[in-house]
Amino acid sequence: LTDTVTRLYPLPPREIPAGSIYADLELPPHRRHDPGRPYVIINMVGSVDGKTSVDGKAAGLGSRIDRQTMRNLRARADAVMIGANTLRAEKLSLGLDDTRGPQPLAVVVTASGELPLDNLLLPERQKLLVIGPQPVVGRFGPERALAIPASPSGTIDLEAALSALRTEYAVELLLVEGGPTLNHALISAGLADELFRTVAPTLVGPTHGEAVHERLPTEPSPASLRSVYLADNELFLRYALQPDHQTNNYS
Amino acid sequence: LTDTVTRLYPLPPREIPAGSIYADLELPPHRRHDPGRPYVIINMVGSVDGKTSVDGKAAGLGSRIDRQTMRNLRARADAVMIGANTLRAEKLSLGLDDTRGPQPLAVVVTASGELPLDNLLLPERQKLLVIGPQPVVGRFGPERALAIPASPSGTIDLEAALSALRTEYAVELLLVEGGPTLNHALISAGLADELFRTVAPTLVGPTHGEAVHERLPTEPSPASLRSVYLADNELFLRYALQPDHQTNNYS
Repeated sequence: LTDTVTRLYPLPPREIPAGSIYADLELPPHRRHDPGRPYVIINMVGSVDGKTSVDGKAAGLGSRIDRQTMRNLRARADAVMIGANTLRAEKLSLGLDDTRGPQPLAVVVTASGELPLDNLLLPERQKLLVIGPQPVVGRFGPERALAIPASPSGTIDLEAALSALRTEYAVELLLVEGGPTLNHALISAGLADELFRTVAPTLVGPTHGEAVHERLPTEPSPASLRSVYLADNELFLRYALQPDHQTNNYS
Repeated sequence: LTDTVTRLYPLPPREIPAGSIYADLELPPHRRHDPGRPYVIINMVGSVDGKTSVDGKAAGLGSRIDRQTMRNLRARADAVMIGANTLRAEKLSLGLDDTRGPQPLAVVVTASGELPLDNLLLPERQKLLVIGPQPVVGRFGPERALAIPASPSGTIDLEAALSALRTEYAVELLLVEGGPTLNHALISAGLADELFRTVAPTLVGPTHGEAVHERLPTEPSPASLRSVYLADNELFLRYALQPDHQTNNYS
């Protein structure tokens, strides 16, 4: 493995230093003036076949460069948000490795108010904010909790939550790191501005809900990228799946 | 929408004619000599968030260029294979639009033997082969059915099926078009050589099995590609999600 990183699009292509993907973005865009909510970007990693986790955990999917890229986005965000289920699945941090500087606000959204907070690794100086229905204030204290009423469907009113983050916590750039339900709730409500999607060179296979037959216990399989075509926003990816083809970089 | 198609990778980038993606591939590779099974390529379309269907149907995802690309692959294949569930979901054809020339063999794999054959639109000259357990021969006739014993897990023995396609039907290039269960069964058994994956510029949202809360009835949302980075087989895609950003092709 090398650290060669190439921007393929927009054209012309160019090599960039390892670890610098998204390091030079202007976020939020300087012409944006929306006092109503933060600029919302979503970052997610998935396999070639679209799975966002292996055995329920996202940690197994991304490479070292993906983790660096995630940290480059976090370094620009005023707050990093996840849904409670993502925290239930595994221990994780929403902070920066460099603990000398400021940390983004760590935001966890919960509809039930039940949170396995032991799973959240809070670096020094990082503050936590739990967003949920009224009882979260009693459970986590007014310093660490924001009560947001539920919308008619029983889920957290995300528009109200974003509005409070902007006006009460001065969040101008909000980075959302999943899970899929929170991501899509924001997207389908028109509250997300950008999506950063890493396609890990891996095939995970059907999840329980999808598999027609009982799921075979298989390991994720590697895939080797052979070509990328672009037509009108649509990407056409070709991968070699057999190990003996994977070092053979013919087009 | 234009018909501009660009090969982004391998470098250098180049423009190619509309509708010619994968039209010039050497499939199977000429140095390949494996009498045991066909060269197996899988083609699938998915959304940016990895979904392979909208309301159970793949037809809603791909663009006109994706359908042309699928036909370019079919035109090289000796046989086109799907799983029975894909046929249950929607009416489809496994043939070529040009009905004057030869058609690939249409192959449907079924573990149950139950097939809604009315959903399969067979063009003139295209032959059908149903692969399944012994009763399929009685049901569909020996001309249109191949009996393959089930593997110990109760599913069709795909290695035996591929071997029969190679030796009894002279299939050298087999194109598999899903669904996800058949695709992954082949991949995890080491029987697939290449994967062609279209990433449609759309977000579909969580499926029933994934959604933690009840699913909101939402339409797929469009996404506009802003950048593509490549590092060691891993792709980093950035999409704009708001309509007012989508015509703004800044990096």
